[in-house]
Amino acid sequence: MNTLQIDSDGRLRHLLTTEGLPRALIQRILDTAETFVPALGAPPKKVPLLRGKTVFNLFFENSTRTRTTFELAAKRLSADVINMDVAHSSKSKGEDDLDTLFTLEAMGADIFAIRHPENGAAARFAANAAPHVSIINAGDGSHAHPTQGLLDVFTIRRHRPDFEKLTVAIVGDVRHSRVAHSTIHALKTLGTTDIRVVGPERFLPDNAQHLGVSITDDVSAGLDGADVVMGLRIQRERIEGDALAGVADYHSRFGLNAPNLAHAKDDALVMHPGPINRGVEINADIAYGDQSVILEQVRNGIAVRMAVMALIAGNRAVHSHATATT
Amino acid sequence: MNTLQIDSDGRLRHLLTTEGLPRALIQRILDTAETFVPALGAPPKKVPLLRGKTVFNLFFENSTRTRTTFELAAKRLSADVINMDVAHSSKSKGEDDLDTLFTLEAMGADIFAIRHPENGAAARFAANAAPHVSIINAGDGSHAHPTQGLLDVFTIRRHRPDFEKLTVAIVGDVRHSRVAHSTIHALKTLGTTDIRVVGPERFLPDNAQHLGVSITDDVSAGLDGADVVMGLRIQRERIEGDALAGVADYHSRFGLNAPNLAHAKDDALVMHPGPINRGVEINADIAYGDQSVILEQVRNGIAVRMAVMALIAGNRAVHSHATATT
Amino acid sequence: MNTLQIDSDGRLRHLLTTEGLPRALIQRILDTAETFVPALGAPPKKVPLLRGKTVFNLFFENSTRTRTTFELAAKRLSADVINMDVAHSSKSKGEDDLDTLFTLEAMGADIFAIRHPENGAAARFAANAAPHVSIINAGDGSHAHPTQGLLDVFTIRRHRPDFEKLTVAIVGDVRHSRVAHSTIHALKTLGTTDIRVVGPERFLPDNAQHLGVSITDDVSAGLDGADVVMGLRIQRERIEGDALAGVADYHSRFGLNAPNLAHAKDDALVMHPGPINRGVEINADIAYGDQSVILEQVRNGIAVRMAVMALIAGNRAVHSHATATT
Repeated sequence: MNTLQIDSDGRLRHLLTTEGLPRALIQRILDTAETFVPALGAPPKKVPLLRGKTVFNLFFENSTRTRTTFELAAKRLSADVINMDVAHSSKSKGEDDLDTLFTLEAMGADIFAIRHPENGAAARFAANAAPHVSIINAGDGSHAHPTQGLLDVFTIRRHRPDFEKLTVAIVGDVRHSRVAHSTIHALKTLGTTDIRVVGPERFLPDNAQHLGVSITDDVSAGLDGADVVMGLRIQRERIEGDALAGVADYHSRFGLNAPNLAHAKDDALVMHPGPINRGVEINADIAYGDQSVILEQVRNGIAVRMAVMALIAGNRAVHSHATATT
Repeated sequence: MNTLQIDSDGRLRHLLTTEGLPRALIQRILDTAETFVPALGAPPKKVPLLRGKTVFNLFFENSTRTRTTFELAAKRLSADVINMDVAHSSKSKGEDDLDTLFTLEAMGADIFAIRHPENGAAARFAANAAPHVSIINAGDGSHAHPTQGLLDVFTIRRHRPDFEKLTVAIVGDVRHSRVAHSTIHALKTLGTTDIRVVGPERFLPDNAQHLGVSITDDVSAGLDGADVVMGLRIQRERIEGDALAGVADYHSRFGLNAPNLAHAKDDALVMHPGPINRGVEINADIAYGDQSVILEQVRNGIAVRMAVMALIAGNRAVHSHATATT
Repeated sequence: MNTLQIDSDGRLRHLLTTEGLPRALIQRILDTAETFVPALGAPPKKVPLLRGKTVFNLFFENSTRTRTTFELAAKRLSADVINMDVAHSSKSKGEDDLDTLFTLEAMGADIFAIRHPENGAAARFAANAAPHVSIINAGDGSHAHPTQGLLDVFTIRRHRPDFEKLTVAIVGDVRHSRVAHSTIHALKTLGTTDIRVVGPERFLPDNAQHLGVSITDDVSAGLDGADVVMGLRIQRERIEGDALAGVADYHSRFGLNAPNLAHAKDDALVMHPGPINRGVEINADIAYGDQSVILEQVRNGIAVRMAVMALIAGNRAVHSHATATT
């Protein structure tokens, strides 16, 4: 829970985490995102909501792909976008980061999408930001990646809108995954009670009770009857040693492949935050198969990021936009 | 020849190679490019043909200069442009590249300019691209660099429009040059029969007959009476060993300098794809002399890339544009 | 003094140095910059003065921050902006740089912001630029950084407009500082006579008389009664050895902290070109304190760079703009 991200009128001020983000606000973001999803076969929408605004992608940790999603979202809102990759040495002090924030604010920044290797960095920036400036957390340490969590629930809602009745299985290294944390918090707030985390013991979160999830290292139990199965990207260097005999063993026990998926419902949605490691945590057949909504997640990610930026930049403008396009 | 690049109505779908590209289509591209060349002293044209479209410069091999030409061409067509430099390790599998393609398509990409170290990579992307997405080959291995080939024939046409009567000498490492291959294929299609490849034996193509060119290691014979003399950039690490005694020897035997150029016609056009190595494959006096059209090639390269993108993005829009500006 | 930067009608053609820049022209730049400073709390201005123009940030030396200021200024003038970071090895010859210039000119560049490690590089580019192309020096060696010098005097003028009565103390490594040189030249031209350079002996300029400044290694004498105190960023590797016992010693003797500042006037302006090294050449309390105008310098830097680009791009357009906004 982070009180910085909501203003005194209950509106979105920054987006730092999905933990504690009120249900009405999540729904507001998802409803706004709906207005930005292009119709089937139609080109993506370009709207003037952020014309004259300046969005900085301030990345203290390199991620071409995530940076591109924020860059595209901002450009489709007609903002000026500046990409800044900033080296973050372990010697840097947090104060140096804040000096960078203050400097870019003085240049006329309106919104920052910030990626940072430290847990809690986005909240630290928000706590120090000028009144007219908003921070969007684009991933901080293993803490949170809220736009990813929101695009996950957005994608689920388009297919399975009754969150309270859902069984969701998340398979992989949840302990170190900011994506999983953000998705779990959003699901809980939207009413999902049956969330199962599946993986080898060392990947299971040690705060499962706090998260409100059940944990298991048995994929058949974890996926049994699931409506949604979400694989997480595995860092290869983490699947050696302990009880894991390597990639093949991991894939056999926890990979999203036909035998493992057979435990879930026949029409279970298959999700993955990308980029996938083929043959590790997922099979290409499954990733591009009928049940997969992985590429929808990517497309929806642009719409959700547009929604977050548009809401932050001014509720009034968004209202009139939503009126104009419906 | 690549059948992927033409749709069932004979229109440009992707641009992968100049080999087998129909004469009428090449002429269509060159005619369209004419509408984008600024008048003498006038600023470059900016047109709204690609407004709302998203062009990705997806470079698996670094090239600031080539990326800039595509970026400028797309911006002058009012597209949103995203630059993505993607590390390509020799360990990567082609499947990983396709995952990147599918992901960026899902973000709403319309056109990709792709540079890749592998021969045939552009065709591989085109074979897997979504129906609404087009691939422009910005250089794949030593295979092809079709926009460079087209800008070469565009530049020649503006000065020597009668391709059938031309003698063209290409001097340098044609064996490894994607530029030379693309230029040769375009020239052949436009009717040039006397194309001579000049260089030390190890630089000469081993498929000269297939290419339809003559080969020689004698610069006086190769340039004799030539209307167009094109130098290629030499990679210094390739001019040691064998029969080559180093840079000075190379320049003396094959460099575009006054003594060597004296074999060509007095008003022969001097061309080079850039960037030049002064004193290696060309002299500065020649590069910036009266016969040189090297900087015209650069300027024309923007117009040709604009033409390719505009044609790919929709013939109708281009027609109305051409009407409006003529 | 550089005669290249003024055209035969006395107007700004390039911006290479503040040395010898006529007083009327400096004032013209500052007056134009005033029209680009956003009102308190208002968003930065976006104007169409450079629509259809292409600005290249051509950086032979990496500087994310400076590049961003030019990128933002150009985008707020509605120009198309291309960022090019070009590796500059010590082996490169100046001729190679000029080939890059000629190539980018042929692509339709209008304005270059050039950063280069060599003293005099900007003038070298200007001497070789095409008639329709302008060069803005974004820092060349330890020679000049004129937009920084101009933003410094712009910021001073907004608070202390009577330059002739000012006492200005510049503290730090003036000998190696292009910023300090550019600021000093601009101040002298605007009439300031009492400029003091303060620092350890090895940091003091050896051409103090030519610069028209007094020098001292005694901070109490140097800051005595100063109206403006400007700290310079210290490169840590330069403050070891000789008489300097390290960072703590430097900060104690020359850092902008309460004891040292007490020698200046009570309301002395505190300035710094950024980014600051907290605890080295300045204290955070001072940098963000009441007397500090450091963040104003950053904001004003965008306005000054917009003014320089707008003036260079055409006096007429700017006149009509100034008329429209006043």
